[in-house]
Amino acid sequence: MTETNPRTELLNALPLREDLRGKSPYGAPQLEVPVTLNTNENTHPVPTEVQQAIVEEVSMAALNLNRYPDREFTELREELAAYLGQGLGPENLWAANGSNEILQQLMQAFGGPGRSVLSFVPTYSMYPILAAGTNTEFIAGQRAADFTLSPESAAAQVREHKPSIVILCSPNNPTGTALEDDVVDAVYQAGEASNSIVIVDEAYAEFARNPATTALSLLPGRPRLVVTRTMSKAFALAGARIGYFAAAAEIADAIRLVRLPYHLSAVSQATALAALRHRSSLLADVEDIKMQRDRIVDELKRLGLQPSESDSNFVFFGGDFDAPALWQELLSRGILIRDVGIAGHLRVTAGTEEETTAFLEAVETHLTR
Amino acid sequence: MTETNPRTELLNALPLREDLRGKSPYGAPQLEVPVTLNTNENTHPVPTEVQQAIVEEVSMAALNLNRYPDREFTELREELAAYLGQGLGPENLWAANGSNEILQQLMQAFGGPGRSVLSFVPTYSMYPILAAGTNTEFIAGQRAADFTLSPESAAAQVREHKPSIVILCSPNNPTGTALEDDVVDAVYQAGEASNSIVIVDEAYAEFARNPATTALSLLPGRPRLVVTRTMSKAFALAGARIGYFAAAAEIADAIRLVRLPYHLSAVSQATALAALRHRSSLLADVEDIKMQRDRIVDELKRLGLQPSESDSNFVFFGGDFDAPALWQELLSRGILIRDVGIAGHLRVTAGTEEETTAFLEAVETHLTR
Repeated sequence: MTETNPRTELLNALPLREDLRGKSPYGAPQLEVPVTLNTNENTHPVPTEVQQAIVEEVSMAALNLNRYPDREFTELREELAAYLGQGLGPENLWAANGSNEILQQLMQAFGGPGRSVLSFVPTYSMYPILAAGTNTEFIAGQRAADFTLSPESAAAQVREHKPSIVILCSPNNPTGTALEDDVVDAVYQAGEASNSIVIVDEAYAEFARNPATTALSLLPGRPRLVVTRTMSKAFALAGARIGYFAAAAEIADAIRLVRLPYHLSAVSQATALAALRHRSSLLADVEDIKMQRDRIVDELKRLGLQPSESDSNFVFFGGDFDAPALWQELLSRGILIRDVGIAGHLRVTAGTEEETTAFLEAVETHLTR
Repeated sequence: MTETNPRTELLNALPLREDLRGKSPYGAPQLEVPVTLNTNENTHPVPTEVQQAIVEEVSMAALNLNRYPDREFTELREELAAYLGQGLGPENLWAANGSNEILQQLMQAFGGPGRSVLSFVPTYSMYPILAAGTNTEFIAGQRAADFTLSPESAAAQVREHKPSIVILCSPNNPTGTALEDDVVDAVYQAGEASNSIVIVDEAYAEFARNPATTALSLLPGRPRLVVTRTMSKAFALAGARIGYFAAAAEIADAIRLVRLPYHLSAVSQATALAALRHRSSLLADVEDIKMQRDRIVDELKRLGLQPSESDSNFVFFGGDFDAPALWQELLSRGILIRDVGIAGHLRVTAGTEEETTAFLEAVETHLTR
């Protein structure tokens, strides 16, 4: 990769950490195109009444913005517990600026020098970056050729590597498929010997074909299990940066030792609270997105491509086509999807009905030309 | 210190990083009292017209909250550069969720295992915690008995320890006094041999007796100098968690390699933008706070105590008095100040005129009883 930043020489002269030298910042291109289906955002805007509720809650918070926020964001933890149900209380909840910060905090507490984190690739590409940022060794575990992960294979890899932390992404990004409970349970059991923390990253859980598929139900009796969530996807709040986790209360206590004090601003807390209190309105679009997602899977199959089964708001697909050419042609038509760096595959976010139609028509045109 | 958390045994059973075991979370008590002068907040509320501007900007941001925020917060960097002046451009600016996150990012890029950060104690107590959180060795440099720091002493300690990073807190927290430019310059020169990054933490810079006292003027020609600031103090936005730095553009490039993508929410960006655009109104209270600060220094001297000269919105004082007894008596009168853990000393934030009067009258009553 050619480095084009004219400041590279100046950067290289700085006493940067050696393992960062020559790296590029993480992030998908932020291009201005009519149809943006590359970062798994919820393409439905926040409903007007929820926008109003957010603005009202922020205007209340503004009265006291000169004061530090509630360091324990107690009200927010109460609302999150009420949303998740499953017998969880506020002591089981923790929140931060996006689930990336949640994962960074977990790695700071349970990872670090001399420790390792195992995940199963291809998976969310931030995991190795978060590992590097916390000086935790990243171990790239393997999946089957069709990107599935069996309980036996996952457990064997945990026994082999004895990682400090295992991250299971479910539904997996970029492949889209959720894990069954038996995989989570097998990994947790295999991690008993190494006292491993097992994180199930459920960023897309609300889009699952079977909504009962969540590792939240496995929390009782598993003190080293952590289920992370986000309000960026189903809640349509990518701009608000609210991630959270549910776990045994002592996991939250551990994070209190590494979190930056007052890490969650009063404005963030207000935004999240208003959204949670209007969740039925916000989550109403989830069913529509699932419908578009299923439509993409069905149509791509009809066109002879091979989409993975999806429990998320995106579809990962391979097949007999020229992926870079398709990506480029879509972009030339104002439709941005994601090349996740897996040869012969692309990933597309399920947008609104119109966006999805635009994508599918462009794919069909390209393939049948 | 006795651990009273009933979850301690459960926490100890977790595979927590060894250096975190037995530690307590950082943070001053958040008590509900009428006069809160313990965390150096700006006790003047955000003016009503600025609150309205913030709410309007947030309501604009709410239209697109389903989308990720501008990862480069370009508009905010432009406004911050315009505020600081000094010939700085947006390429010289970086922002994050509070100056704690700024410092954490700097330590992630330039510190880490096998590297060290030197600061001069007593100073901001988060520095060793941030060092631990990034696995950077913290070196506690020394000050003179009166807590001042000379160019010769500071430079000698830099030459001795060859730290990866030096943090100079100016005005220093908790002692309140700003450093002269010659200290910063001597430390920077001494750090040439060890290629040290020199951070000047100017969280309280706007309250300096001489407003020209800022290391910003030293930035040209010093590519390893970083000046950090915050909107929590002079801008009365502790609740909004906006910290930032100014430095050579390649320092910001280095931080792009460790920052979490989209770390600054659209709501945070909107809040900061609105505040910056109304800065003359927001900063109007700074003069009043400086007046109360000077009044505290003068009055404590009159009462026979020994306050340090202050360039900040707080006063650190020693003298012939029973510090824990005074702290407790003030609390019993509904006035919360800070025991920063330095024997025979306390720290008080300069509040409004009424709050300052309440504090001074209570001190006088206590001392003359």
